[in-house]
Amino acid sequence: MSDTERRPGAGIVYLVGAGPGDPGLLTLRAAELLRTADVVAHDELVSPEILALAPATAERLAVGRRQGTGKIDYRLHPAVLDRARRGLRVVRLKSGDPLIFGRGGEEAEELVANGIPFEIVPGISAALGAAAYAGIPLTHRHVSAGVLLATGHEADGGAPDPTVLVAPRAPGASPAHDRTLVLYMAARRVRSTLRRLITEGFPADTPAAYVAAATTPAQEVVVGTLADLADQITPPASSAARPPGLLIIGEVVRLRSRLSWFERRQR
Amino acid sequence: MSDTERRPGAGIVYLVGAGPGDPGLLTLRAAELLRTADVVAHDELVSPEILALAPATAERLAVGRRQGTGKIDYRLHPAVLDRARRGLRVVRLKSGDPLIFGRGGEEAEELVANGIPFEIVPGISAALGAAAYAGIPLTHRHVSAGVLLATGHEADGGAPDPTVLVAPRAPGASPAHDRTLVLYMAARRVRSTLRRLITEGFPADTPAAYVAAATTPAQEVVVGTLADLADQITPPASSAARPPGLLIIGEVVRLRSRLSWFERRQR
Repeated sequence: MSDTERRPGAGIVYLVGAGPGDPGLLTLRAAELLRTADVVAHDELVSPEILALAPATAERLAVGRRQGTGKIDYRLHPAVLDRARRGLRVVRLKSGDPLIFGRGGEEAEELVANGIPFEIVPGISAALGAAAYAGIPLTHRHVSAGVLLATGHEADGGAPDPTVLVAPRAPGASPAHDRTLVLYMAARRVRSTLRRLITEGFPADTPAAYVAAATTPAQEVVVGTLADLADQITPPASSAARPPGLLIIGEVVRLRSRLSWFERRQR
Repeated sequence: MSDTERRPGAGIVYLVGAGPGDPGLLTLRAAELLRTADVVAHDELVSPEILALAPATAERLAVGRRQGTGKIDYRLHPAVLDRARRGLRVVRLKSGDPLIFGRGGEEAEELVANGIPFEIVPGISAALGAAAYAGIPLTHRHVSAGVLLATGHEADGGAPDPTVLVAPRAPGASPAHDRTLVLYMAARRVRSTLRRLITEGFPADTPAAYVAAATTPAQEVVVGTLADLADQITPPASSAARPPGLLIIGEVVRLRSRLSWFERRQR
């Protein structure tokens, strides 16, 4: 559909979660919105298979920034505002879920400030995808009664904030009430993050898993403890080649030895 | 497909998340598995629109139990094992995500014990659906740097466990590092849960939202504080009529006044 077919003011922006990687983990609603999009403004990590769902005539804009690859721009990309103002249907496609470390709320605020209608479509967040495809339940009876999703780095790019890192076992609590901790965006500082958790009071033998490129054919899962996990991760050939990764920390990690299925899946 | 077309031993069970309610929030992979299922064993809360994706010839089994409506059976339903042993493709469809308060890990353990192949397909968990459709970001720059998913009741049906309830603001921490708390399965004890949070040290004026029937046309969102939210929720006509609900607690709740869109959506 060309720009001139849309009346100014009739534009809309859909803030859509693209899921963790596997194109099969896109929602039906996201696929429907992509099929009728005039513009797809996407994070760099969104897969070509997912972008291919949009019409060939749809404009494609890579507007996201990979963490750490430059100064991060927190505002909505000006091109998204521009296309919506011109009356177009814009799908703003974000890795994972828009409202869990996706800055979807900030983009929505800017749409509100500019009087542009929007909708928010949740996606499978990386923790959920990694857990399912690695065979590590985030909650599990008698093992984990909750899960904290946090980041391995401070939001503004500074040092990790200790207040974000809660110990999974409260003093005197029953092990049945442990909580799982998932740290997003952990790929670039696994060693310092794990060391910090030990400093913060986590037992050094707490089970921990590193999951990279979750839910994709390149998925890699490394299991260890807070003390030894970092030594077991094979460094990538270059920093640029490092896929996104997260850490899952807690007793639930032990379940993977029985519950992993992705590596031996049968279709 | 009739039972006799399947060789014994070739069965498989897919532990699949059905998402929070809106059929559009099913994943493409879940829809594909439903279309080729011999048997769909589903939680009671899964919508008819989703179940309709399975072939008319597929066997449908309601095997879940709504929380609180009887003795909870933690094992995998015997009919699921039976159908898989007969070589059938069974989709075990669970509300939300199988590994977040879905007992998917326990069902997977029983499949392992019985030598039955399985796969796990993540789903949009209730917190993610409620957040997106209520306009309440779970994380937000300068407001919330993480989110804890827990339950409003103890796993075994007993009293809530205080160790599960962590205060969102650590003493002396910057407000920028607050965390959001989401309590699942909160519908039946909103008042006692909120009171308990205040007793545990949460400020009584902490913003809180109750979201019932999230992402469905019946979605209801009530916003208040820990002190006054319970008084604002309209009691259902009967206990049986009470839809599933969750609590979102933290400063992010304030964003809803600007970011809500579902109530005024335009297709």
